[in-house]
Amino acid sequence: MCAIVGIYGNENAARLASVALFAMQHRGQEATGISSSCNGKIYTKKDRGLVTEVFTDEALKYLKGNMAIGHNRYSTAGGDSILDAQPVYAKYKLGEISIVHNGNLINKDEVRQDLIDKGAIFQTGMDTENLIHLIAKNTKDRLRDRIKEALNRTIGAYCFIVQSRSKQFVIRDRYGIRPLSIGKLKSGGYIVASETCAFDLVGAEFIRDVRPGEMLILAEGCEPESIQLFEPEYRPCAFEFVYFARPDSVIDGKNVYVTRENMGKALALNDKDKNIKVDMVIPVPDSGVPAALGYAAQSGIPFEYGIIRNHYIGRTFIEPTQEMRDLKVRMKLSPMKSLIEGKSLLVIDDSIVRGTTSKRIVKILKEAGAKEVHFRVASPEIKFPCYYGIDTPHKEELISNNMNKEEVCKYIEADSLEYLSVDDLVNAIGNDRNYALESFNGDYFVKA
Amino acid sequence: MCAIVGIYGNENAARLASVALFAMQHRGQEATGISSSCNGKIYTKKDRGLVTEVFTDEALKYLKGNMAIGHNRYSTAGGDSILDAQPVYAKYKLGEISIVHNGNLINKDEVRQDLIDKGAIFQTGMDTENLIHLIAKNTKDRLRDRIKEALNRTIGAYCFIVQSRSKQFVIRDRYGIRPLSIGKLKSGGYIVASETCAFDLVGAEFIRDVRPGEMLILAEGCEPESIQLFEPEYRPCAFEFVYFARPDSVIDGKNVYVTRENMGKALALNDKDKNIKVDMVIPVPDSGVPAALGYAAQSGIPFEYGIIRNHYIGRTFIEPTQEMRDLKVRMKLSPMKSLIEGKSLLVIDDSIVRGTTSKRIVKILKEAGAKEVHFRVASPEIKFPCYYGIDTPHKEELISNNMNKEEVCKYIEADSLEYLSVDDLVNAIGNDRNYALESFNGDYFVKA
Amino acid sequence: MCAIVGIYGNENAARLASVALFAMQHRGQEATGISSSCNGKIYTKKDRGLVTEVFTDEALKYLKGNMAIGHNRYSTAGGDSILDAQPVYAKYKLGEISIVHNGNLINKDEVRQDLIDKGAIFQTGMDTENLIHLIAKNTKDRLRDRIKEALNRTIGAYCFIVQSRSKQFVIRDRYGIRPLSIGKLKSGGYIVASETCAFDLVGAEFIRDVRPGEMLILAEGCEPESIQLFEPEYRPCAFEFVYFARPDSVIDGKNVYVTRENMGKALALNDKDKNIKVDMVIPVPDSGVPAALGYAAQSGIPFEYGIIRNHYIGRTFIEPTQEMRDLKVRMKLSPMKSLIEGKSLLVIDDSIVRGTTSKRIVKILKEAGAKEVHFRVASPEIKFPCYYGIDTPHKEELISNNMNKEEVCKYIEADSLEYLSVDDLVNAIGNDRNYALESFNGDYFVKA
Amino acid sequence: MCAIVGIYGNENAARLASVALFAMQHRGQEATGISSSCNGKIYTKKDRGLVTEVFTDEALKYLKGNMAIGHNRYSTAGGDSILDAQPVYAKYKLGEISIVHNGNLINKDEVRQDLIDKGAIFQTGMDTENLIHLIAKNTKDRLRDRIKEALNRTIGAYCFIVQSRSKQFVIRDRYGIRPLSIGKLKSGGYIVASETCAFDLVGAEFIRDVRPGEMLILAEGCEPESIQLFEPEYRPCAFEFVYFARPDSVIDGKNVYVTRENMGKALALNDKDKNIKVDMVIPVPDSGVPAALGYAAQSGIPFEYGIIRNHYIGRTFIEPTQEMRDLKVRMKLSPMKSLIEGKSLLVIDDSIVRGTTSKRIVKILKEAGAKEVHFRVASPEIKFPCYYGIDTPHKEELISNNMNKEEVCKYIEADSLEYLSVDDLVNAIGNDRNYALESFNGDYFVKA
Repeated sequence: MCAIVGIYGNENAARLASVALFAMQHRGQEATGISSSCNGKIYTKKDRGLVTEVFTDEALKYLKGNMAIGHNRYSTAGGDSILDAQPVYAKYKLGEISIVHNGNLINKDEVRQDLIDKGAIFQTGMDTENLIHLIAKNTKDRLRDRIKEALNRTIGAYCFIVQSRSKQFVIRDRYGIRPLSIGKLKSGGYIVASETCAFDLVGAEFIRDVRPGEMLILAEGCEPESIQLFEPEYRPCAFEFVYFARPDSVIDGKNVYVTRENMGKALALNDKDKNIKVDMVIPVPDSGVPAALGYAAQSGIPFEYGIIRNHYIGRTFIEPTQEMRDLKVRMKLSPMKSLIEGKSLLVIDDSIVRGTTSKRIVKILKEAGAKEVHFRVASPEIKFPCYYGIDTPHKEELISNNMNKEEVCKYIEADSLEYLSVDDLVNAIGNDRNYALESFNGDYFVKA
Repeated sequence: MCAIVGIYGNENAARLASVALFAMQHRGQEATGISSSCNGKIYTKKDRGLVTEVFTDEALKYLKGNMAIGHNRYSTAGGDSILDAQPVYAKYKLGEISIVHNGNLINKDEVRQDLIDKGAIFQTGMDTENLIHLIAKNTKDRLRDRIKEALNRTIGAYCFIVQSRSKQFVIRDRYGIRPLSIGKLKSGGYIVASETCAFDLVGAEFIRDVRPGEMLILAEGCEPESIQLFEPEYRPCAFEFVYFARPDSVIDGKNVYVTRENMGKALALNDKDKNIKVDMVIPVPDSGVPAALGYAAQSGIPFEYGIIRNHYIGRTFIEPTQEMRDLKVRMKLSPMKSLIEGKSLLVIDDSIVRGTTSKRIVKILKEAGAKEVHFRVASPEIKFPCYYGIDTPHKEELISNNMNKEEVCKYIEADSLEYLSVDDLVNAIGNDRNYALESFNGDYFVKA
Repeated sequence: MCAIVGIYGNENAARLASVALFAMQHRGQEATGISSSCNGKIYTKKDRGLVTEVFTDEALKYLKGNMAIGHNRYSTAGGDSILDAQPVYAKYKLGEISIVHNGNLINKDEVRQDLIDKGAIFQTGMDTENLIHLIAKNTKDRLRDRIKEALNRTIGAYCFIVQSRSKQFVIRDRYGIRPLSIGKLKSGGYIVASETCAFDLVGAEFIRDVRPGEMLILAEGCEPESIQLFEPEYRPCAFEFVYFARPDSVIDGKNVYVTRENMGKALALNDKDKNIKVDMVIPVPDSGVPAALGYAAQSGIPFEYGIIRNHYIGRTFIEPTQEMRDLKVRMKLSPMKSLIEGKSLLVIDDSIVRGTTSKRIVKILKEAGAKEVHFRVASPEIKFPCYYGIDTPHKEELISNNMNKEEVCKYIEADSLEYLSVDDLVNAIGNDRNYALESFNGDYFVKA
Repeated sequence: MCAIVGIYGNENAARLASVALFAMQHRGQEATGISSSCNGKIYTKKDRGLVTEVFTDEALKYLKGNMAIGHNRYSTAGGDSILDAQPVYAKYKLGEISIVHNGNLINKDEVRQDLIDKGAIFQTGMDTENLIHLIAKNTKDRLRDRIKEALNRTIGAYCFIVQSRSKQFVIRDRYGIRPLSIGKLKSGGYIVASETCAFDLVGAEFIRDVRPGEMLILAEGCEPESIQLFEPEYRPCAFEFVYFARPDSVIDGKNVYVTRENMGKALALNDKDKNIKVDMVIPVPDSGVPAALGYAAQSGIPFEYGIIRNHYIGRTFIEPTQEMRDLKVRMKLSPMKSLIEGKSLLVIDDSIVRGTTSKRIVKILKEAGAKEVHFRVASPEIKFPCYYGIDTPHKEELISNNMNKEEVCKYIEADSLEYLSVDDLVNAIGNDRNYALESFNGDYFVKA
């Protein structure tokens, strides 16, 4: 999923980039990196770990200059992930560049094969490497023209920031699938970031979203220059609203938190005539909270914090013995036993992917004494994998690809189960837009 | 503040102790330790760090035996804290013992001086060392008698677990100031822990609270033996309910979460005739949440999650520059700008100690666009330091020792400020009890 | 300077590679890496640190397969050295390859510029990346042919091992500047390594040196296939004998230790008529020991271990205060005060580069009471930087580029100073060969 | 075995103590610690690890004051060694003290039991704790008197430095078994250290050895005050000369390096008529080097560095497979194959304890092609364990307790074996003294 940031024209560029990455840590915790540019030289520091671990004072001192780009990497499988951290840096004909990327290129294998056939080498598994090759192989004189032509070969969901030795080029795909906004730093210069929650922390005023199909060029002494590269066909990703973005971010003018409350309200309206008697509405924390608040507000059923989330987990676990099954889920989520004992619960989670976590949550709630557990999901059934930048499992592992609602309900041992309909989802976010909904309806609109 | 645990009669004693300590990590994050006992030998492992960091598989293998005691240490000042970690182990006349302690001995300096005058040496700053000396210097033949007589010299708020090579002695002071409960492990044996939230995680049934003034003796092949050492004068600490305990714990038969909701309801009732117009009730997360839910339920004003808590902070920070004042608070607590912009807020926190954090919270909310910020505190004014085991600052640093309500309101720049009254606090927890309320009313009832 | 190793046809390939790299740790301590190949997939693990730190059991388990190549990297300047660690891995037209390299390509900038002009990108500062590009851009069907043609563009001192998914290609430049030998593993398969000291540790029989200009191809079920790519013009590096190689290695049939003793003998013969009266011969440990033994044996002057080397230094230092100047040298080298007090010393070091260390050694010996310090250097004056793979400083920093023998003697405050003549050096190693002597005589025989 | 240091009257006290401990790192690598004293408060920092790891700049800043004592701890078995690190600090009747100790108290169990019987508790396994208790339980008004009386109860080999809030008390047992010297710091104040090699590194002039049975008191504004506590019966430990001390130290006026050369010479004289034909004398590095030099000088047989010691081992090892037996010895000691192939060797080690290492050395030398291996040991047969501070194994594990010379020779598969006689050992060190020789002759002269 990842987060990207660019800071341009501020003497604390790397420091501000690190603070912005910290605000977007929820989008990726595996690795993080920053490239700054100073006096015609690009400096890069990237490593495994959290932002606060990697960007020590020493690292930030090394990252000289008044422009910087940064990246948080989402956890992925693989042996030596440090090599797949971003930014990706390269020397090429026009000098040095460094690139950060959020998204997924659906034609990356073809482009890569074509480049390989022409003699390119690939040192990482990142599709970002494709773009660098396309830029490097191009013969135009100006980087902006090379980027343009490279993007003509690039199909997918993407936000790029390309940093040369003196400029930054910010690009968002024509569909605007992944979010990207630009703001003005109170301490001078500009910030571009995946989520607006980064603006608040660094002290920046939101200007606007980067437009679908737009390239913004940040250069010294100029206002940001806007070039519309592609005809926009705006389809922002619904999943950002459902689950991924931080609730205090604003995407496409919509407050993420409010859209989640709306999703909960829609679930409540849908339940209105079902005559389900429950004692309380309980969120699966943290992401289920706004929807549960919405459900409670709409239905009048009390909202209670019936599951506590433990934040001390860290990266290592005490390995459970056979006698301590379910310990890993329990260590993360603790049911509030005395609150829920003997009660009928309406539990709201943001989504069901494989179904295993939902099953365990129902189990620990029932073991804690819940009389009934009615499960509500603040998103539609996920039947299709996402190829636009969200790390979903293979189709076969998606429970809703294999089971219908009744079967899932039985599998997770809930007393009832309801999903948000696709229409309700769209209305909850705002029906002024077509959204990227491929995980729910299989509409893979990005075509090669 | 600290947490203690004892596991008796279970082949996974150390492992279960570590899981219980994990569940009680909120009571202390600086250091942690476990002593197990096996074949007449006591094994101890203690170190700086979180439970999941210290108790690796290797450490747990070292901690052999079917009995174990453990401790989480709250952060304190000092140069070489590892020496002040618990359990405290010693060889003495009757063999080996290891002790864990939660609380504070108010006559520790006199006892220590007296012991020193008689030739004792003290290697740490921990009052736990007092008890070991008193036990060691006693001349009784049985450990239980030595402990009894040692406790006759020991005044304060305390929960001890003393582990010998074959038994555990569990003691709670006559006032029952700090919580301590006993449960039955489903996998065999007993657990004693500061909070019942540990029982749920290890798979234990709550039996009962350890009684004020009681000594429980756990020995092989026997039911726990109960000896009433002191006439009970039950005064459980109100602060456990206000702030310290985990909301899913049950103390003295009271669900902590529910008592916090009650505190919020009382605040709402108190505001009823004040004619304050606010758009939403907002908790300072995480501990202000239940009170805010109670306030919202009572008042009918919508509850909203207007402040996001960031859990990626870790132990290191990106050091802010001069331009980034307030960054440390902001990194931890992010206001939900678009939700609160132009709105009047009723903000609920669990307590005001020095006032600096409250001031910063009001500030960042106003900077995020809040029209009005009405501050509500789910506890009375803290005018007196706690000497019974909670790490409060010196009297002079307590803002309510220096300012009245109106002055504090002005200092934190809130539009209004209300505290919970002491009576309302007592009623919220349950008026069947005298509570330890010394921080609010200066009633230092534990006397030498 | 670096070390490389290849293991082919042994089920413990990565483990043996790690042991061989351990034996060659003296050739590079900054970073280390191994690529193994198994079932058509190449696995790579590389990181900062010593061999024993990086190659944990877990890492070795990840490195599956019965073939592996490895590399130790010499310390260099730069911000994020992990990106410059080897092996270098890439996907290209014929599949996957991984390469390790020891040496220096003198035409790397031209080749790199030419490749960049044709659209290549370079992600590291390593010249190894050149070779991969040349191989990838070639259009031959067989990897061996691509390597051959790539080497036609490659001028310099080099030893490469190229690993594909099923073969290893071992190449040594036509001059054989850097050492490389092949051995037979007693546990099955072959080993290729920079130094024969690795053979002893892994249990391998020396077969022969890889020939200058030779490519050896290791493939399953075959004897190593030898292809003579270039007309050999054997010029092994004299510096390997002087300083770099481990004394128990054999290069070009010459026992390194014995050649160093010979250097010391030549220094003694040269001093014979000088009528210098000294009490003892003292080596600068560890590398000056064999020459000092040779000098003592030839001259009859007693050899004494007058300087102790401290091996506990590690990577961090206690920072000296102003009062503790010279502490860093002293922490590493301690004069044996009571042995040398009032004595005339003949001190032997392997070389003088900048002169600062020699000056400090003379100083601490005199402060320890030495009456006279006669400095002998078991190599000629270093007047020219090495471009063939040894990390020498810039020409201006070489003391013998700026000062003649008398001036250096005065600078280091020695009572006399003698170098080995170039002829004596050649004779000490063996006058059957032309050697690479560019550091001494400026004969840069490798021409573009 | 351990090292101790005291710095008195220097503003960089802790820093100089750390440098001195660094110089004595060979005496103990498991843990290290320093206590400084400043304005009536004692500051202590101790931890597992090497001196350069534990004493960071931050740690040294914490250790304020112009007096400091320090300790290096030798590796021992046990679960949580940090608790057994020194200095040992305690509060007691007269204030605060901190103690470092090198040696072994032979009556420690009786004293400890007696103290325990009187109600003392022991929190560590260190005999240092005994002394603190004896001092604390004493009723004299002055610390010096308490120390005196405490030492009347203390039998064994010991060097103590007791630091109060303003003074240091330096004590050496009546036999002077462990070395201890005092020097004058060039930068002001005094240093007391286990070995004089520490003086050279910190910049101190040797004054004299602390006398057997002496207590030196260092106090502000005074010359060191000397009190002879016990009638001296000087018996310095012969093992310090054989193996433990650094060769550049001077103990009891004897240069350790020279005594080791003498031991080698004695071995050569002893072999004179044996008509053994060997090609070279080879030391087992590092400690066998001076004796081998002495042997070579006496016999005229060439000295060669036939075994290389690898210093990159660190604390972790690549775990050998079954096929790689003997790898651990080989990783540490590499035979110089081409030098020794076909040769008859005379190998000199400092001692044979269990015999296993000697056996492996003979084995790897023979596998490397040695025709004959004649083993010489620069100490007598070790038949008895040391109870005076050297960490020798149990009697049954001492090979010379179980086998005579011929049997040992056969066991280690050497072609001949000779030990130094006890008389030759005494003469090599200096026959002006009685030495502690209990490991060789069982003369346990320290009696309770």
